[in-house]
Amino acid sequence: MLIVQKYGGVSVANCDRIKEVADRVIASKKQGADVVVVLSAMAGETDRLIDLARQVQTRPDPRELDVLLSTGEQITISLFAMAVKERGFEAVSFLGYQVPIETNPVHGRARIHDIPTERLRKVLESGQIPVVAGFQGISSEGEITTLGRGGSDTTAVAVAVVLHADLCEIYTDVDGVYTTDPYICPSARKIDRISYDEMMEMASLGAKVLEIRSVEFAMRYGMPLHVRSSLTDSPGTYVVAEDETMEEVLVSGVTYSRNDARITITKVPDRPGIAASIFNPISEADIVVDMIIQNTRATDLTDMTFTVPEKDYEEAMEIVKKVAREIGAEQIAGDRDIAKVSIVGVGMRDHSGVASKMFDILARHGINILMISTSEIKISCVIEEKYTELAVRALHEGFGLNKETD
Amino acid sequence: MLIVQKYGGVSVANCDRIKEVADRVIASKKQGADVVVVLSAMAGETDRLIDLARQVQTRPDPRELDVLLSTGEQITISLFAMAVKERGFEAVSFLGYQVPIETNPVHGRARIHDIPTERLRKVLESGQIPVVAGFQGISSEGEITTLGRGGSDTTAVAVAVVLHADLCEIYTDVDGVYTTDPYICPSARKIDRISYDEMMEMASLGAKVLEIRSVEFAMRYGMPLHVRSSLTDSPGTYVVAEDETMEEVLVSGVTYSRNDARITITKVPDRPGIAASIFNPISEADIVVDMIIQNTRATDLTDMTFTVPEKDYEEAMEIVKKVAREIGAEQIAGDRDIAKVSIVGVGMRDHSGVASKMFDILARHGINILMISTSEIKISCVIEEKYTELAVRALHEGFGLNKETD
Repeated sequence: MLIVQKYGGVSVANCDRIKEVADRVIASKKQGADVVVVLSAMAGETDRLIDLARQVQTRPDPRELDVLLSTGEQITISLFAMAVKERGFEAVSFLGYQVPIETNPVHGRARIHDIPTERLRKVLESGQIPVVAGFQGISSEGEITTLGRGGSDTTAVAVAVVLHADLCEIYTDVDGVYTTDPYICPSARKIDRISYDEMMEMASLGAKVLEIRSVEFAMRYGMPLHVRSSLTDSPGTYVVAEDETMEEVLVSGVTYSRNDARITITKVPDRPGIAASIFNPISEADIVVDMIIQNTRATDLTDMTFTVPEKDYEEAMEIVKKVAREIGAEQIAGDRDIAKVSIVGVGMRDHSGVASKMFDILARHGINILMISTSEIKISCVIEEKYTELAVRALHEGFGLNKETD
Repeated sequence: MLIVQKYGGVSVANCDRIKEVADRVIASKKQGADVVVVLSAMAGETDRLIDLARQVQTRPDPRELDVLLSTGEQITISLFAMAVKERGFEAVSFLGYQVPIETNPVHGRARIHDIPTERLRKVLESGQIPVVAGFQGISSEGEITTLGRGGSDTTAVAVAVVLHADLCEIYTDVDGVYTTDPYICPSARKIDRISYDEMMEMASLGAKVLEIRSVEFAMRYGMPLHVRSSLTDSPGTYVVAEDETMEEVLVSGVTYSRNDARITITKVPDRPGIAASIFNPISEADIVVDMIIQNTRATDLTDMTFTVPEKDYEEAMEIVKKVAREIGAEQIAGDRDIAKVSIVGVGMRDHSGVASKMFDILARHGINILMISTSEIKISCVIEEKYTELAVRALHEGFGLNKETD
């Protein structure tokens, strides 16, 4: 039995927490498992370092920022290895270049190319615990790279995959994936098993438990994930390949996001290439457009509505105003006070009526739907922000997520 | 003109200081010099990290401690490179393994074996400023090593030597090497030029401006050093090969140290091997004995007096008590309240009477000499600790160090 255990920043926030994690890893070891540990930086450390960087350079150089940020995990892995040794067990820390975690040379959001396993295997075979720095890698030119926010999850899954581990455990400060946000909806329940597909939709829609790339990676290689709390011993949520039992559930979870803003351009002359002329300048400004809806009017005019991250709203509006003049659109409207609520579930694939049930539930609570977008296993509605909590609770109850299933 | 500039922890203590150093380096660059920068960790950072390590492991594992401590310089070099770039110049940071600074595998006090210059030269030739992490290196097994306290000075000198630099500038928070401690003796003067030999004696006797190994290194390869302040533009002290002009000065400096303790064993049976039986167990306990004096009595008994670092005093006493019983020595006495005052100068080599002048000066001030030791260019006297300041001032004035020389 080989387990890769990843501990996030809150789990290693200080020396006392690091010692607790050491106890936990040693407990797994005593139960007979071989363990590889992957660690994040102490909670808050990455932000502290970014703040230092911004004090010396307006737009920190990506190469040097990676050199700086990679110290975060370097500190936790060395302290953690010491804590394990203090308890009479053996551990060896591995920086990105020592494993090595080989990545492409894109600083700040590198992708893992390969992870040779020779050194890790040697340490495992000698009965020691390899402790791998998450988030960081090395390019073929010998430069330090980082994988972007949440990158330690990806490191853990990738290490698990190359070592053919039996399981990858992601330890965090919540005890699993919930049917919805328990802070908004007290009847939210922990999900015991969820499919990779659903987890990806949940992650991309705002459930911040797992980094989406790591789930993608796990799905591609069929690596089972176990998302659980580093504070308790109770099982968390298994993220696994879809199986029959899951199909019985129509909807697995309700998610929401308040970080979007909506922009509408009305009476756009409807001719080929008009969408490109609006969205090209926006994507050139590195602004990610999420939902796009086009309503063609009876005439040769069309309305175009789309959402952008709220932080990019001002910039997007500037761009759109310029474009609107150029293409002769009549009017622009913007709205920051929106929210997106979504239901996710693989069961939707084979069942009709899920969407209309969602619209019906929202209507019964007097919530107006501003935009709709759907995928195979997800339906998202944009609504007025003030209805967020009400919508989440109504959908959670309406789809029976508050009831025990087993 | 190629200059290696090393900045210590106080010079890079925070982002503002780092920006000031960037300005200074760019000024050198603008004057036409090629510059390689070597940096220490921010002041206090190494101590903070050691404190973290001790919180998780009673005796921190040397390998992991090096992984931990090397983050200190990693932070300063990346921030510094960003600060240079913010000013429109180009800089590239180099970690120990990236240069590479090749060392032996002794963690915590590694010695530099070699520094291939290919990567540094390439960066220099392209007009960029290489920024090298001091203090750290890499062993042939790919492990991070550190050079020990003050190791960044050694890194700077070694880099200067392999690149055949014209000068190695050591920037610190004092403006040079002084004839003695200005806090004790207000008439202390900055020394313009001092020989490597004298600087080494000064360094080993307690003048904390330069790490002794770096001076040794500079002397071996004839690399001129310039010790100066990062806060002013005035020249500091050049540490160079001995030349004729120096001979004119009998004594270059007065140093002192209060960190020793004295142990005396009286009436030791004087037979071959007796010294070894006393000092072997002490050196096995990793305690460094400094001065040793043996007085043979008229009989076949001898008295043995020696000094150890004050922090090791208790442990040394324990060992000596045990040994004394075994060898049948009569009595043991110890004294922590001692100080060592020394005069240093290459001129002593060719002039007699320097020692007696020193004894005479101390006697005239009523200071009793407890132990004496001499080398070619240094005379040290152990005295009662309470007389330290008086002795330093008396010797400084007695040898005319308070007077301008040029």
